[in-house]
This record gives sequence, C-alpha cells and structure tokens, in this order.
Amino acid sequence: MLKTRLTEMFGIAKPIVQGGMQWVGRAELVSAVSNAGGLGMLTALTQPDPDALAAEIARTRTMTDKPFGVNLTILPSINPPPYAEYRDVIIESGVKAVETVGGRIHDHVNAFNAAGVKVIHKCTSVRHALAAERMGADMISIDGFECAGHPGEDDIPGLVLIPAAADQLGIPIIASGGFADGRGLAAALALGAEGINMGTRFCVTEEAPLHRNFKEAMVDRAETETDLIFRSYRNTARVARNSISQEVLRLEREGAPFEDVAPLVKGLRGREGLETGDTEHGIWTAGTVIGLIHDIPTCQVLLDRIVADAHAIMSGRLAGMLNPEPA
Amino acid sequence: MLKTRLTEMFGIAKPIVQGGMQWVGRAELVSAVSNAGGLGMLTALTQPDPDALAAEIARTRTMTDKPFGVNLTILPSINPPPYAEYRDVIIESGVKAVETVGGRIHDHVNAFNAAGVKVIHKCTSVRHALAAERMGADMISIDGFECAGHPGEDDIPGLVLIPAAADQLGIPIIASGGFADGRGLAAALALGAEGINMGTRFCVTEEAPLHRNFKEAMVDRAETETDLIFRSYRNTARVARNSISQEVLRLEREGAPFEDVAPLVKGLRGREGLETGDTEHGIWTAGTVIGLIHDIPTCQVLLDRIVADAHAIMSGRLAGMLNPEPA
Repeated sequence: MLKTRLTEMFGIAKPIVQGGMQWVGRAELVSAVSNAGGLGMLTALTQPDPDALAAEIARTRTMTDKPFGVNLTILPSINPPPYAEYRDVIIESGVKAVETVGGRIHDHVNAFNAAGVKVIHKCTSVRHALAAERMGADMISIDGFECAGHPGEDDIPGLVLIPAAADQLGIPIIASGGFADGRGLAAALALGAEGINMGTRFCVTEEAPLHRNFKEAMVDRAETETDLIFRSYRNTARVARNSISQEVLRLEREGAPFEDVAPLVKGLRGREGLETGDTEHGIWTAGTVIGLIHDIPTCQVLLDRIVADAHAIMSGRLAGMLNPEPA
Repeated sequence: MLKTRLTEMFGIAKPIVQGGMQWVGRAELVSAVSNAGGLGMLTALTQPDPDALAAEIARTRTMTDKPFGVNLTILPSINPPPYAEYRDVIIESGVKAVETVGGRIHDHVNAFNAAGVKVIHKCTSVRHALAAERMGADMISIDGFECAGHPGEDDIPGLVLIPAAADQLGIPIIASGGFADGRGLAAALALGAEGINMGTRFCVTEEAPLHRNFKEAMVDRAETETDLIFRSYRNTARVARNSISQEVLRLEREGAPFEDVAPLVKGLRGREGLETGDTEHGIWTAGTVIGLIHDIPTCQVLLDRIVADAHAIMSGRLAGMLNPEPA
C-alpha cells in the first residue's frame, strides 16, 4: 500500500527493512519478515563459516520465495573472518540485496556492484554516508543516536541526521534507529527517507529466535531504560540497562581499561543466552524504541499494522490538517 | 494552510511556536514571529523586573496585533526572582498564552488556569509531562535530546519521545528540539504532535536580537558541532562547540567541581555578547539543528517556507507514495 524507491529497488511490498543483527538474523526471522512484505536480512557472521552461510541462504529459500538480503559487517580484527569468502557466497547465492556495515568496504562494494547485488550501506554519520556513496553504494541506511548497538560517537538523532543526509546524498536513504510503528514510518518518509530499518522491534516478534524473556523485558521497559557503554573506549554501544551495564559504567567512570571490563561483558544474545533466557548476567542490546514496543506480534501482524497506520496518518490525519485557505 | 489543535487553541495561522529564549525573546523577534503567523514568546526573566516585563508586553503590542505569549522559567535559586509578580503581570496584561519551564509550577498553573491563560508546559521527559498534565497544563512542549540548552539527563530523541508522550498524554503536544524546516514539521505532525517549537532556527533570522556573528556561525556549522557540558553536575546543557566548551569538558573529565568551572562559563548571549559578537570567549547555546540551517531569512520568509514545504510534503510527496493496491 506504500510505494517508494525502496520498495521499487528490491521488489518488496512494504518499505521496511529488518536490519542485520548478529545471531538473530537467521532464516526463521528473515523469512517471516520477507513473507510479511518487508526485506529480511540474514547476518553472514552469525554463521560459523562461508559454507554455513550458503546453507542458511538455501534454508531461507525453502521458507520464502520473496526477496531477502544478507548483512556483511566488516570490523577491524587481528584475525579477521574470511570476509571475501562470505562475500563470494552471497554473490554466488543469487541474493540481490546486501547490507554492509563498517569501514574498508571498497573491494566488497566493487564486487557486489559488478555482480548486480544492490548495496545498502549502514552508517551513523553523513560523512561516512558520503564516502559510501562515492564507493558505489546504492542506498544508505542512516542510523541515528536512538539505535541499539553501535550509534557511533556523534550522537545525532534521526530528526536531524535523516534530513541532513538527504540534503547531501544523491542516493536514496533508509531511516534507522528509533522506529517501531506507523507514526515513525510516516515521519521517516516526511524527513526524506524512502523507508525504515528496524532491529529492536523485530526482536520482539513471535518469529525472532530469542528467548521469550528478552522479548518480555523489552515490552516492559520504558525508553529511558538503556545504557550507553564503552563510550570511554570510543566504541559506544547502546544496551539494555541491567546490573552488568551499570557496573560497566561505574568502571568506566573510574577510568578502568577495557581489559578490566571485558570479562564482565558476556554477550547474552549468543547460544547460551538463547537457551537460558538470562537477561541480567551479561550484556544485550536494545534501542530507545523499547519505549514504543508494547506487544509480541507475528511479523505479518506487525508489518501490516505499521503500513496501515502510516497509510492512515498520511491519507487521514495529515491530509485533514491541510487547509485550502491561504495562511 | 495547516490547521491543528495548536493553531485552533491560540488562533494562529501556522502551527509553529517560538520557544522562550533568555535574552533573545524580546519584542523585536516575538512580534516578527507572530506577524508571520507563528506564536512568538517573550521571556519574562529577560526583563530585569516585573514592571519592565509589563512595558515589554506593551511594546510588543505596538509591533503586532497577533497573539503572542510569555515564557516563565522557574529555576531553583537561593534568591529567586519575584516569580509570582512576573506571573501576575502576565495575567494582568491580557496575554493569553504562557510557556512554563521548570519544577514547582503548581501555584502558577492554578493562577493561569483561573485567569484563562493557556499554559504550554515545556519539559524533557514523559514523566514530567504527565505531572504537568495533572497540574492543569493545556499543552506539553516535549523537548528532545536534539535541543539547545537543557535537554535533561535522559537523552531521549524526539523520534521516540514524541510518540511516547503522545501515547500517554491526553492533552495536545508540541514537538520541540531538532526542528528547522518543513520536513521536520510534517514529521512532527506524523509522530502525533500538533505543531513544532523552534529556538535555534529563530535565532538565525533577520529579526533575532543577536549579533550577526552568532547567526553566521550557526549557518556555517554542521550538526556535529555542539557540546553537552555540565553533565557531570547533572545540569546538562547543549552549547555551540568552541574553545571554552572544550575546556569545560576537559575539566569535567578530570572531575573538577563546578566552582572551578563556573568562572570560565561567561554566557555570550547577554548584553556584552550582543555588542561584541564574540563567539569564542564564553558559552552560547545552539541545538543539533544547526546542521539544517543554511540561511538568515526574515521570520516571514522562514515561516512561509516551512509551512509551504510541509504542505507540499503532505499533499505531494507522501500522497504520491500511497498506493491504492493492497500490499
């Protein structure tokens, strides 16, 4: 019911992308998002090796005949994963959409461009977006201060970041960070984006492969219940507030080096957290948008509702405010 | 050309409020905003005493016959200004709109309610908004992390804060922080607000009583060029980045007590800064929205453009994305 450059580029029914999320971006969620009309996104590095990614792409294909993509996150590392091999698996699989994150993406973007795979580059600043555009990205997913995980160090929220990016970029923009409902989708389109990217909201769906404890914790929380950890190491991450995140912040205030903090920071969204549902004894990510999440719907119910609500806002509420008389 | 609960409540042509700004909120700017169809707002405490406020209200009336309001900011103080006398001047002047800021507003809201003066309470969190609603406020101006001056300590941007407030409040909402153009106005209306409040954008107009150096500095700056000072004293303020703000942050990182920092922090928007146009040797406020400010128009040109652009987005861009076919 909504047609934008995002829906046109990927042949999807709804202008909503499920952003790449380590561990969560597997076939169950991705196929559910794509079947509901959005663009699901596997995460390459959730799979232990490139062959496993090929198998996960094939498994997703058995669960949906709609378009989906793969996230490839390039992080600085002493012993990096075999990024080029993951990339080649994506290209050879015939997937037509990829979400890139991180620096040093030039070779990968070239390869995707040559293979006709459309590249959505996700970043948190206008200057990085401009660099990605120059490298050949097809769209920018611009991620505001609201977001879960890594918001960067500039702290610019979407209300300013999205139009600032739209002013300077020639390629289309997807708005990311702080989106959960039809109001947000309509606002993103007004600000100049062609659709929205959601992460936290998709974690709180029936199909997300997360222990129900995490989903219920996100329903219960207000927008104020996240913490920004690792700022003192210039690697800021927005996580759900719990006793561990508070302890990390206390240590950071005391000037503790990262080596002293790292042992505390067990990620809870890995295999162990999924099995135990323990929300307190480690770190897990959640965006400020948890304040707008009040239920655990299926992806189909969620995406139908978001688009119907945005449609109603655009054709009803906003249209009703238009006054033909001159001001 | 836009009709909302904000334009209806105050009998104004455009759903745009000029938020109270110490020193800047004087007759020249206020009358220009109101003449352009918005709601201008004097700041009571810019005037040295209640009689001077009465005179400034009278002076504004000679410059516009349109509605305008007065901001009354209540701050904790050992030797507080005579707030009740300022309040009584507002009531006796016949002004029909007041913007309140701060705590301990209960008596003032009661008095305004009794006199038929509509109260817009500005605050930075949903819990404070709910408290103000219970006290009898008529509207809430909800101020996000993007804003200039004091964003509070919760750091919730408007994309989340505005709909979170709309979900919980019964009274109408004005969206504040991060707004400068028609895209922002259309987005605010989509998020559930009835209009926008702007501060920084109004400082960069011909009529704002500020030295041109400040205006040109705001045109030149990117959204990333502000600093959040005084966080360590739990009195966070967003200011334009300069050598002084950077020095304050350095001292705060070292754990300096406020008494050691205070001598550095000469406000530049007072009489002296206006005369010298010195943007470097003291502190002055600016919001992240400086990244979206590219010119120094008159208030009439600015407000006409914002409403025309919002109208075009709502009736053109957004309407064009509506697709009658089912998804």
